[in-house]
Amino acid sequence: MLDRQKKILYFNTFLNFSRFIYVNLEKQWEKVARESGLSSAQQHCLWILFIHEGMTLTQLSNIALWNKSTTSEIVTRLEKKKWIYKKRDNHEIKLYLTEDGKSLVKNSVKNSSCEQFISIFDSLEEDEIKQILETLKQSCDLISLNENKDFKSFVLNYSKDIKDKL
Amino acid sequence: MLDRQKKILYFNTFLNFSRFIYVNLEKQWEKVARESGLSSAQQHCLWILFIHEGMTLTQLSNIALWNKSTTSEIVTRLEKKKWIYKKRDNHEIKLYLTEDGKSLVKNSVKNSSCEQFISIFDSLEEDEIKQILETLKQSCDLISLNENKDFKSFVLNYSKDIKDKL
Repeated sequence: MLDRQKKILYFNTFLNFSRFIYVNLEKQWEKVARESGLSSAQQHCLWILFIHEGMTLTQLSNIALWNKSTTSEIVTRLEKKKWIYKKRDNHEIKLYLTEDGKSLVKNSVKNSSCEQFISIFDSLEEDEIKQILETLKQSCDLISLNENKDFKSFVLNYSKDIKDKL
Repeated sequence: MLDRQKKILYFNTFLNFSRFIYVNLEKQWEKVARESGLSSAQQHCLWILFIHEGMTLTQLSNIALWNKSTTSEIVTRLEKKKWIYKKRDNHEIKLYLTEDGKSLVKNSVKNSSCEQFISIFDSLEEDEIKQILETLKQSCDLISLNENKDFKSFVLNYSKDIKDKL
């Protein structure tokens, strides 16, 4: 058991590093989105539906980590732009990308900001990248990954779902 | 060199895990702050000045990762509440906590939400915690830690600066 001062020290270091990573990623992600004429939230939403089509609004909000009303606003705006559409399936309403929406996502990963952005791991070996991701997953687990089953299953099935889509 | 699909896969996993960690930490941090009658931004600001008193507004904004005008607004509000004060030192204006500000920070880490919050590493050995923090630092480096010297020096000197303060 650590003494209290060390506990606070480690915890705050964790908090500050996590903030730094997120804030900087978000800033660059915003730049990538702008090149496609999107907000970063819209881009995030389109990406999630691109990877895993046919999810409900609740699932989307759990994965994007937005509350329901924010998610609903973003979806409505993207629907108006004809990038996504809703389809009733039994008693559920599910969300899908239109062909235009799919092209938008595919093109967005080709722009130069995105190219630069996804290349941050280029200096590492694959094993090192996997080690980083494993540690991040461990951190998510400590925080409460198990409580958000939609998010967990989305991220962990990512590699299966993305296959042949790009 | 990874193929493009793997690159996008790893990158997106990194992005999603980082978002999950940050959003969930922020949510809990907000709860801790509320128990002390603060916003999470105010609490973040007080914490930074508690650890390292006498910084300029520019340094504070680099460490808190806010732009100058946001930082200035937060500082003004905390000054009005008499938790921080400004002091001219040569040609620079530096920020300090008042005695009330210091008590507020010290008491805030004693409340029950905070106790729970800083205990997320309790199930780990110290070496494992250090490993997580090292990996996060590595991720920060990949993103651009070197470009933000104020933040880097703040986080890396944390353990020295926090000594005897709590």
